Amino acid sequence: MASAESIQRELPGVVGRSIVAGRAADGPADAELRLRAVNPATGTELPPVYIAATGADVDRAAKAAWEAFHAMHAKTGKDRAALLEACAERIMAEGDGLIAMAAAETGLPTSRLISERERTVSTLRMFARAAAEGSWAEATIDAGDPLRKPVAKPDLRRMLRPVGPVAVFGASNFPLAYSTAGGDTASALGAGCPVVVKGHPAHPGTGEIVARALTAAVSAAGFHPGMFSFLHSGGERESAVGIELVKHACIRGVGFTGSFSGGTALARLAGERADPIPVFAEMGSVNPVFLLPQALEQYAQSIAEKLTGSITSGNGQMCTCPGLIFVIRSDGAEAFMRGVAELMHRIEPAPMLSHRVRLGFAKRISEVMAVPGVEVRAGSPMAPHRSGAGAEKFEKGYGIFASPVLLKTRFETFRRNPTLAEECFGPSAIVVVCEDERDLLEAAASIQGSLTGSIFAGSLDTALVRQLQGILEQRVGRLVFNGVPTGVEVAGAMVQGGPWPATNAPHTTAVGWYAMKRWARPVCYQNAPEVLLPMELRDENALGMWRLVNGEWGTGGVEKSR
Amino acid sequence: MASAESIQRELPGVVGRSIVAGRAADGPADAELRLRAVNPATGTELPPVYIAATGADVDRAAKAAWEAFHAMHAKTGKDRAALLEACAERIMAEGDGLIAMAAAETGLPTSRLISERERTVSTLRMFARAAAEGSWAEATIDAGDPLRKPVAKPDLRRMLRPVGPVAVFGASNFPLAYSTAGGDTASALGAGCPVVVKGHPAHPGTGEIVARALTAAVSAAGFHPGMFSFLHSGGERESAVGIELVKHACIRGVGFTGSFSGGTALARLAGERADPIPVFAEMGSVNPVFLLPQALEQYAQSIAEKLTGSITSGNGQMCTCPGLIFVIRSDGAEAFMRGVAELMHRIEPAPMLSHRVRLGFAKRISEVMAVPGVEVRAGSPMAPHRSGAGAEKFEKGYGIFASPVLLKTRFETFRRNPTLAEECFGPSAIVVVCEDERDLLEAAASIQGSLTGSIFAGSLDTALVRQLQGILEQRVGRLVFNGVPTGVEVAGAMVQGGPWPATNAPHTTAVGWYAMKRWARPVCYQNAPEVLLPMELRDENALGMWRLVNGEWGTGGVEKSR
Repeated sequence: MASAESIQRELPGVVGRSIVAGRAADGPADAELRLRAVNPATGTELPPVYIAATGADVDRAAKAAWEAFHAMHAKTGKDRAALLEACAERIMAEGDGLIAMAAAETGLPTSRLISERERTVSTLRMFARAAAEGSWAEATIDAGDPLRKPVAKPDLRRMLRPVGPVAVFGASNFPLAYSTAGGDTASALGAGCPVVVKGHPAHPGTGEIVARALTAAVSAAGFHPGMFSFLHSGGERESAVGIELVKHACIRGVGFTGSFSGGTALARLAGERADPIPVFAEMGSVNPVFLLPQALEQYAQSIAEKLTGSITSGNGQMCTCPGLIFVIRSDGAEAFMRGVAELMHRIEPAPMLSHRVRLGFAKRISEVMAVPGVEVRAGSPMAPHRSGAGAEKFEKGYGIFASPVLLKTRFETFRRNPTLAEECFGPSAIVVVCEDERDLLEAAASIQGSLTGSIFAGSLDTALVRQLQGILEQRVGRLVFNGVPTGVEVAGAMVQGGPWPATNAPHTTAVGWYAMKRWARPVCYQNAPEVLLPMELRDENALGMWRLVNGEWGTGGVEKSR
Repeated sequence: MASAESIQRELPGVVGRSIVAGRAADGPADAELRLRAVNPATGTELPPVYIAATGADVDRAAKAAWEAFHAMHAKTGKDRAALLEACAERIMAEGDGLIAMAAAETGLPTSRLISERERTVSTLRMFARAAAEGSWAEATIDAGDPLRKPVAKPDLRRMLRPVGPVAVFGASNFPLAYSTAGGDTASALGAGCPVVVKGHPAHPGTGEIVARALTAAVSAAGFHPGMFSFLHSGGERESAVGIELVKHACIRGVGFTGSFSGGTALARLAGERADPIPVFAEMGSVNPVFLLPQALEQYAQSIAEKLTGSITSGNGQMCTCPGLIFVIRSDGAEAFMRGVAELMHRIEPAPMLSHRVRLGFAKRISEVMAVPGVEVRAGSPMAPHRSGAGAEKFEKGYGIFASPVLLKTRFETFRRNPTLAEECFGPSAIVVVCEDERDLLEAAASIQGSLTGSIFAGSLDTALVRQLQGILEQRVGRLVFNGVPTGVEVAGAMVQGGPWPATNAPHTTAVGWYAMKRWARPVCYQNAPEVLLPMELRDENALGMWRLVNGEWGTGGVEKSR
């Protein structure tokens, strides 16, 4: 891993300034605006000093986005595709320096960050294909009939149109894939919405490098510079930058990935505007896993391996980390827990994303362990500093390292203590031991809305699976069979969403091309002259997109000329 | 029109009781639960006495809906289509008695109510076709690849699934098409959601007859009786029934058509639940109309006729009633106003829907007229009792009749007085006279979110139309060219929706088959065994619906067997 100094030498372009509509912000650099990144693996501050965006920066970025939105009438889906392709190319062109910066700022392994960059780029390209192809916009045409009695039938043409400038709040746990050029930014640009990113203070350098790449892409693709801005935030300005963005009249939608408290606060703020705007918040999730008797009988060790990998993936800092595991008391269940214990024992402590995240994990683990009847089954929550570079720092109160933990309790205890049903963000899970199938089904029915639910079933578990599925599909966005919830495939059929409190918008997904629809709303043109219609709705289907014409899907033109 | 007494003789089945899961409620009939309908054309109370639903009725209806939802796993889209068809048939089978009751309760003409019944039935049948056909559910399949490196590609299958029981709050202005069996009920049933209707106190008899028809349809189509319930509300229980419904744990979504204050209050209530649920509120709208210079030069009289008809349609009690008309000072604009004045002068006062609606109209007209610079250009707001059966009642303080009014002001006055930009529910419009094109565009940019925007343009207005369109399509759900906003066609391409405050959910429509999507959310099945998948997602596309399989739309099966 590159040292902080070598990163700085390699990346002279990281100037620590917000990028507003193509230019580095050059406002004041007062003391209260200054912030630093911290390397969670060492506890040391990283250069350079970053200057948080001022209120004037926020205002300029939002107004430039508004201008860019209005300058976009002549742009097509293919133009937006070219922009997204350029973003992907420019990010790749940033090379190893980006990976080194992200590793230094997050403590995540280089290999993981390289694959996360691959995911980011492939997501940009998926939205590019969707924007170019055009079918995402639900073009729907019902041709008129001027001769219909008693009244003429109007010609109606409807499609999704972009809502306007979007503010994006990235997450700390995916510094590339859910941050500056993550799924929210990519889908909003694809839909035709300019984006203003509030940079995450846990990885300002990573954010600035990616923002630089996107700024270059906007210019290269010939879009108005207001199409993308990036605002450093942190310190005293961390909340303020976000609040000012969400309240700004030029911002017409908000994308957020992060905590429940953060997401609900932003949604409330947006709802209190004189003109409320939509907020799409993906807020964390317990991701319950149900291990059915036959599955444990047949594959306890294999399941232990898969789940240990899933619990500790990204050091447990995944939205889809499995936090609750339900089993029925059995030898298989014991074998499973033994298997996890053996695997966890071999795992070295690893740094968490930030001091704040580490403190949150410690606090939640303490709360859970304080419940009578909860016991440690594997790992040790008290030994995050057992080895590694974190030991000294932990003793000094940094405590950025964490080890995985498997807790265990009986269903009775789980039922009586609602705190056990809440998310614990970090490498841990609670095994809830049920006495019988009825307990297991009752447990499923008590689950809060979650991004995922997983069922491991053997060949003879079918009847129970059906019952469980009927309950879980009302509570989750994605139901995984014989697999772990981590590893969210980027595909059209993916759903990264779910009922409250997993998200505040259960009809949406944050992953897959359907995510573009969040940034658009339907507009119907009644009896519009052909020349005034958007390209997508004209008789000739020049783009060859799928459209619903007079009730039939097709890629052809409208036969009946008006 | 049938007399109140003859209605009662013809309809012995109207017992004045809520219908909960197939049975008439038989709880207490305490004095505080009693309510009566009033004939707005005569001011007299209509028989029978209705008994508002109790808290126990609300609870039973919601729980029965929850049971019905869980009993529906074996039902297909074709089964739901049969239910909707049965609803349509049973409503028609209620015959003239339904129309007579609706006319007596609302004061709307019989001819209008007959066409509204036709609209209601055709809407039920449109959702029946959509449910049977299945494509609305966005079935999307990405086949897996177990051999992909570095990790196997999962098999992902996603579709929209119903959210659960839905509470529907009907509007007073469409006692059939937006009430008990209106678009919200029909779309929710089509999506697979049981419905509990809060009956509107302005037309309890109409509501009960329609509810009786739907109850019979649920039974005939073989659904669980909890699939549909109808709760009388009014008097002291008017708000309470609605509040109890929205807060009930078994209710998973809410549909509302009505006032801004009502819609926002319900949305706030739903958001304060421990598990917030979505509310889709369509809340009224000013529906601005722009008359461009060439159009006025060429067609002033024709436009005057169309707009007068639109302003007075349903006595101005339409969501899409045009409330603001923007013109540029000209002879054509004068000719237009003169034309409207002549037409309005000939229109007899007609009853409004209720005393409450009439009072609201009088209050808003007073507020608008109190603004210095606003003048009456046509009609007379002070002469609602000029003639007809309402004269005596008005003098006694009933004042249920109203005459159409055209007000006029200058753009400067409009700009300085935000109250002029708000909806006035009733047969009135304000003509805002602009000095030039710049004023007109500034006016467009100041418009609040609205269901519709209309542009009348002549052959030489094209440049101005383009500018106006660019502004308006960000503010409205439907943009009408050379036509009036009233007369909402039931079609797939229709959008009855729009940005706040027209609705609280600008990504949705209340009319057209896309309205079904409001009651569903996406669920993804990852690596699910074929037998556990919903029919719609199995390899064989037995239903022949449009699906997106591996990125291509089609009606065939999945080629690659898993």
